[in-house]
Amino acid sequence: MQLLNEYKKVRDRSAFICRPLKTEDYVVQPVVDVSPPKWHLGHTTWFFETFLLMPHCEGYQVFDADYNFVFNSYYESVGKRVIRTDRGNLSRPSVSDIYSYREYVDAAMEQWLTYELSPELTQLVLLGLNHEEQHQELLYTDIKYILGHNPLMPAYGEGPQLASINNTKEPISIKAGIYEIGHTGEGFSFDNELGRHKVYLQDFTILSGPETNADFLAFIESGGYQDFRYWHSEGWDWVQKNQVKAPMYWHWLDGEWQYYTWQGLQPLHAHEPVVHISYYEAAAYAAWKGMRLPTEFEWEIAATQFNWGRRWEWTESAYLPYPGFVKAPGAIGEYNGKFMVNQMVLRGSSDVTPPGHSRITYRNFFHPHLRWQFTGVRLAQ
Amino acid sequence: MQLLNEYKKVRDRSAFICRPLKTEDYVVQPVVDVSPPKWHLGHTTWFFETFLLMPHCEGYQVFDADYNFVFNSYYESVGKRVIRTDRGNLSRPSVSDIYSYREYVDAAMEQWLTYELSPELTQLVLLGLNHEEQHQELLYTDIKYILGHNPLMPAYGEGPQLASINNTKEPISIKAGIYEIGHTGEGFSFDNELGRHKVYLQDFTILSGPETNADFLAFIESGGYQDFRYWHSEGWDWVQKNQVKAPMYWHWLDGEWQYYTWQGLQPLHAHEPVVHISYYEAAAYAAWKGMRLPTEFEWEIAATQFNWGRRWEWTESAYLPYPGFVKAPGAIGEYNGKFMVNQMVLRGSSDVTPPGHSRITYRNFFHPHLRWQFTGVRLAQ
Amino acid sequence: MQLLNEYKKVRDRSAFICRPLKTEDYVVQPVVDVSPPKWHLGHTTWFFETFLLMPHCEGYQVFDADYNFVFNSYYESVGKRVIRTDRGNLSRPSVSDIYSYREYVDAAMEQWLTYELSPELTQLVLLGLNHEEQHQELLYTDIKYILGHNPLMPAYGEGPQLASINNTKEPISIKAGIYEIGHTGEGFSFDNELGRHKVYLQDFTILSGPETNADFLAFIESGGYQDFRYWHSEGWDWVQKNQVKAPMYWHWLDGEWQYYTWQGLQPLHAHEPVVHISYYEAAAYAAWKGMRLPTEFEWEIAATQFNWGRRWEWTESAYLPYPGFVKAPGAIGEYNGKFMVNQMVLRGSSDVTPPGHSRITYRNFFHPHLRWQFTGVRLAQ
Amino acid sequence: MQLLNEYKKVRDRSAFICRPLKTEDYVVQPVVDVSPPKWHLGHTTWFFETFLLMPHCEGYQVFDADYNFVFNSYYESVGKRVIRTDRGNLSRPSVSDIYSYREYVDAAMEQWLTYELSPELTQLVLLGLNHEEQHQELLYTDIKYILGHNPLMPAYGEGPQLASINNTKEPISIKAGIYEIGHTGEGFSFDNELGRHKVYLQDFTILSGPETNADFLAFIESGGYQDFRYWHSEGWDWVQKNQVKAPMYWHWLDGEWQYYTWQGLQPLHAHEPVVHISYYEAAAYAAWKGMRLPTEFEWEIAATQFNWGRRWEWTESAYLPYPGFVKAPGAIGEYNGKFMVNQMVLRGSSDVTPPGHSRITYRNFFHPHLRWQFTGVRLAQ
Repeated sequence: MQLLNEYKKVRDRSAFICRPLKTEDYVVQPVVDVSPPKWHLGHTTWFFETFLLMPHCEGYQVFDADYNFVFNSYYESVGKRVIRTDRGNLSRPSVSDIYSYREYVDAAMEQWLTYELSPELTQLVLLGLNHEEQHQELLYTDIKYILGHNPLMPAYGEGPQLASINNTKEPISIKAGIYEIGHTGEGFSFDNELGRHKVYLQDFTILSGPETNADFLAFIESGGYQDFRYWHSEGWDWVQKNQVKAPMYWHWLDGEWQYYTWQGLQPLHAHEPVVHISYYEAAAYAAWKGMRLPTEFEWEIAATQFNWGRRWEWTESAYLPYPGFVKAPGAIGEYNGKFMVNQMVLRGSSDVTPPGHSRITYRNFFHPHLRWQFTGVRLAQ
Repeated sequence: MQLLNEYKKVRDRSAFICRPLKTEDYVVQPVVDVSPPKWHLGHTTWFFETFLLMPHCEGYQVFDADYNFVFNSYYESVGKRVIRTDRGNLSRPSVSDIYSYREYVDAAMEQWLTYELSPELTQLVLLGLNHEEQHQELLYTDIKYILGHNPLMPAYGEGPQLASINNTKEPISIKAGIYEIGHTGEGFSFDNELGRHKVYLQDFTILSGPETNADFLAFIESGGYQDFRYWHSEGWDWVQKNQVKAPMYWHWLDGEWQYYTWQGLQPLHAHEPVVHISYYEAAAYAAWKGMRLPTEFEWEIAATQFNWGRRWEWTESAYLPYPGFVKAPGAIGEYNGKFMVNQMVLRGSSDVTPPGHSRITYRNFFHPHLRWQFTGVRLAQ
Repeated sequence: MQLLNEYKKVRDRSAFICRPLKTEDYVVQPVVDVSPPKWHLGHTTWFFETFLLMPHCEGYQVFDADYNFVFNSYYESVGKRVIRTDRGNLSRPSVSDIYSYREYVDAAMEQWLTYELSPELTQLVLLGLNHEEQHQELLYTDIKYILGHNPLMPAYGEGPQLASINNTKEPISIKAGIYEIGHTGEGFSFDNELGRHKVYLQDFTILSGPETNADFLAFIESGGYQDFRYWHSEGWDWVQKNQVKAPMYWHWLDGEWQYYTWQGLQPLHAHEPVVHISYYEAAAYAAWKGMRLPTEFEWEIAATQFNWGRRWEWTESAYLPYPGFVKAPGAIGEYNGKFMVNQMVLRGSSDVTPPGHSRITYRNFFHPHLRWQFTGVRLAQ
Repeated sequence: MQLLNEYKKVRDRSAFICRPLKTEDYVVQPVVDVSPPKWHLGHTTWFFETFLLMPHCEGYQVFDADYNFVFNSYYESVGKRVIRTDRGNLSRPSVSDIYSYREYVDAAMEQWLTYELSPELTQLVLLGLNHEEQHQELLYTDIKYILGHNPLMPAYGEGPQLASINNTKEPISIKAGIYEIGHTGEGFSFDNELGRHKVYLQDFTILSGPETNADFLAFIESGGYQDFRYWHSEGWDWVQKNQVKAPMYWHWLDGEWQYYTWQGLQPLHAHEPVVHISYYEAAAYAAWKGMRLPTEFEWEIAATQFNWGRRWEWTESAYLPYPGFVKAPGAIGEYNGKFMVNQMVLRGSSDVTPPGHSRITYRNFFHPHLRWQFTGVRLAQ
């Protein structure tokens, strides 16, 4: 019954996030990293249909056989279908078709969840729910991108409730020694957090709070975007090519910096943690400050001593397997391991992370040039 | 009153074309040449608001000042707005907002059209209506592309009514001599048809009917797409790069050629005129036949002697100004002249050309690689 | 004997053009349109080996079978060789290998040319020599590009001797009527000039001289590159994307316009005909002047009444087949016909056209954005 | 005197590597990662001129002020010069000019090195020599690319002498615990090796020898390039896009695998260590074997117990700063730190690494898709 309740709660939340949208907002894909909201709604549903109902629920009838093709993000075989296209070009299935799909699958799932499940199936349901929660964060970030890159800059509405965090930045010092890293215990975790293991850390200091808009503004005003010495070589190319001059959503208007928020354009709040910066910007900012980013191990060990949760915080760790990492067999196994190259780890969670979805061992990861997520920076030394 | 009636009739027809669409179908832009249907609806409305109501209708209040930015296809100035984006990324204004915009402008126009207009203003209204009719043809072709490139291949519905044409292909011979080309008389025409002038034509023969699917299938089956000798150098590159093997919308399925139509996938109709071929394909087909395409002048002189109207027919004429061509001053003047390079002329009209919109002097034009219009081929020698 | 002498004269001239080069200058290909000089030397030699010696000279032994692959610009089959590469990446065959290849083929040709040849073979030798003369013009333009785009801007040397032309620009008026166009007579011509035929021309006026650097400077200084109204839509995109602000080889240095010449950087000569402009620039300039470019037919009819020969002059004619144009069979037939799309005709000849290679009926053609040839502009009305 | 002798020895070796080249081979740049040999010769010379002679040798006259622009790979300022171009387009300075440049700088350096130098300047000279040795390895790899991608596949000559290595692959087991990593002692090292520090390693096993051509052939023959399960997501995209089917330089010819070597095409030597594979290929191969790549720390600790030196060995470590890494100030400081993102570490050395240039703490790094270096794979578990 607890799993059933959890199922209902998570599934309802996806629809709740989309409630302020117009039908048109569900459809577009302004850049390749952003998916149309209706795709998220369909893809998360497809997960339950494909990995639970089809193999394990006797007598289940697939809602629409074509949906496997449309909503499968991992589809590697080629040539089976006549038409291949991008997510943002798909006007069909319609939004109401996808909500029908959700209702159909939810009805079957809710019926099926009244039975006693094996531990393996329970884990798979939990994986599906955590998968959906990941897409809920993406729903928020993608919706913000879609509305915030529309020339009319429409407001979304109220937006998620924000944690209140004491923004003081005190240095926290940690002594060198052997520490343990990685998930342990009975709760859910992704495969990339598993394999709790020892690491040796050197003495280090980390700040108790993230850097703010006011901090970052000082970097901008001192010419940080114009001085190649602070930047990685690839970061500098990225700045030049994209003419980057400020974090995403910042606009210089009427003689002041404004930024796009859930309520539309607003003057910059100086004391908010800076957000929507790339790894390149985080690292250049740290270099300008004469400091550095923490490694993901430093972050995990120190994080018990500070508040976090408003921003995904870039670390100086590349996304690589923990010792003993093993991919699960089959399609589920593609979940994490195949992305372990050319991405940087982010730790913490953000304003738009679903409640209960964050953990101190959680490893998020993105390419270093991306910044449409709620990404910020905390300094170390 | 006649102009008012004409206005209502043309404006209603745009909405009629879109009636079978779902809201989502109005939004997407699968390739750069295709515009979202809602953009067509807004842009044609913007024309009347900008060129007629704003300068000439006293007391007119603009519906929404931002729409000038969103619906202006000729906007050349830069830097005025914070966000610039592609048509297919715009979820707002919503479809219902755009229909409200149409109603608002139509109400103002219909009121204003009850007054006596100067000949110049009457001409400008007619230009607006002909402009909207051009976009009605684009609405059909873009809708077909959007639905026909969706993996679900949904049907549109009944589709436009087709002219019945005798498809016999008899040779028509025309004697060499001086002929007159270009629009004359009082009816509406675009600026690119004006300047009636003499040309000298050599003896030539042209067929009384267009080539059919069966004809084109013979080209395919004899290896026409694999033999570079039939192709222009750029056409051959286009075939290789895009792996072209048949006209657009043709699919080899279950051992036969099928094609996407208004009613969904259907077996090929052998006797229909072939459609959705590029200039490169038309020219290669003609070379394979040992014939050639007619020039636009040959077509215009001979067309009084045959039926046409199901397909836009590629000619061997580049789109260039007629002798004495003068661009109109101002934004209206951008209408045609600025496209007079790198495009080929098509003559005739198609299944989706609005009734009354076609003329024997009409000059349509597209880049030689495009084929999402209803383009076909007629041979000459 | 005359053919043998002509052969020697033409072949020697290619080497003469390359005499000022260093070995390294023969090798590079800075942009796709420019070929390395050593490729030109090899390719023109390959023509004689492939189309004359191999099929028609008994006992001829191929110099190196691999050269067919390296020097064949028309090679359409694929997959035969392990490595495919771009011309500018080929360090081998070396320059001295290619000169050995020339000597080897020349020895065989000169021996073979002492025999009586059939008219067909004589024509083929003449085609080979005219082909080599075309590449001699390309040698000059490509060498200028290679040296003029090197940051050291080395001088080439003396450069070709220039025709002295009276630069006065008087209007020449031609009456409307039927005129004859195209090559006639016994001399050599390319296939694209053949099929002498009647055209009807309207009354027109054409200037007796080409536009000068001083004329074009006035266009620049009045903001011509910043005003989209003068430009074709594609031309305007080209200006924006490439940040074009002046003809190729012009540099704003130390407060004045200078340009790269055979002798290195020099101050602009005001009275020289403007050179190295694209069709887009020529057409925008004409629009700014309130005039237009002549058609290729107007040019051919009027050119008996003015001097020409310093610049290839852009016309308002697209490159299309003359009535009755027939491609020669086989590889030779690819010579001209397959380029008849998306290119504009240029008439006249230039400072670097080989003596005796120009004709009033000669049809040169390039894509409208190209300007590394010696291209200029003459106005009409 | 020892430094002077070392200087002469290193400088001579660059010229020795180029001795088999023709002038043309010095000029080309077939892909962006490969530099023309003449650029390497000039750039390494520019280093001594710029960082030693100009600031520290009184009375030194610069050879040619323009060379700073041509040979500076770190040049970040923009707009100073009229012409900017790619290395592979530069026919000038000529090869003989560059050898004159080398002689001129060498004469000044050899004179200057007879004086007593401060420890800082001695270190800077050593940095210049190690920098030149790095470019000597690049000279070999770039020359192999230039000749091996020419359709004539010319031989280079004898090639470097190969270490003889016992190729047995015994498992070596290392116990978990704290180990020390990084350069120590008085010898030269790069900044990225410094900061010797403790790491904690888990129990692991590593093989005593690298994988061979025969091993890799088994991967190919079992369909490894066709099965996405073995690949990183980005690696799989790379395989698809580039149609990768074997290591670089392998060709399937006449029914067998051959590969390009210093002596031209040869049948594959089964027992040679596999070479010219990307990180993606190394990782996919390891996954297919059910093993993994070692981390760079595991490699450094275990490498005292096995032979290495024929191949750069991909590790599962991203290229990141060691704890306490500090960039040197000024242009020299750009040396390593700015590349610490999106690259993977390779350990060991290769057939073409200069003698004496390798160390057990040496950190080489390349992007994961590159394979023109002598890159191979050693497995761990």
